[in-house]
Amino acid sequence: MPLFMDVHSLGDGVTMDDVARAHAADLATQDAHEVSYLRYWVAEGEGQIFCLVEAPNAEAADTVHREAHGLVADHVYAVQEGS
Amino acid sequence: MPLFMDVHSLGDGVTMDDVARAHAADLATQDAHEVSYLRYWVAEGEGQIFCLVEAPNAEAADTVHREAHGLVADHVYAVQEGS
Repeated sequence: MPLFMDVHSLGDGVTMDDVARAHAADLATQDAHEVSYLRYWVAEGEGQIFCLVEAPNAEAADTVHREAHGLVADHVYAVQEGS
Repeated sequence: MPLFMDVHSLGDGVTMDDVARAHAADLATQDAHEVSYLRYWVAEGEGQIFCLVEAPNAEAADTVHREAHGLVADHVYAVQEGS
């Protein structure tokens, strides 16, 4: 399954709690789209969020965010993990 | 140990092989600075690299990149991992 890193640049700060709630909504939504949000990292002060996600394509990953909470990423990068 | 996501935006493409060589140089350099480059992801076509790294501070992570291969990140975010 292709791997993506999606990046949210909210500008203002964001709290871990807010992102955790959004992530829980992603998990509750993703199965219908064959998407797996795997891990995420948050820079609270800078409002920056990185989500590592397996999905059939970038659009499917976006669709899960849109349906779950409406906060789609600013950019979704197709990535490979180094070893 | 604090956790950081560093982001390199090379603009042009980059190959997994080139990044793997740079990462190997990081691993050979990091111990003296108490830094651990943990994982990394590469968008080859877009020249985007994300490195997850434990370090005493962002400067130490940058120092390892600078000493190892000279390619410092465009931005280093202090992050927390969600669960």
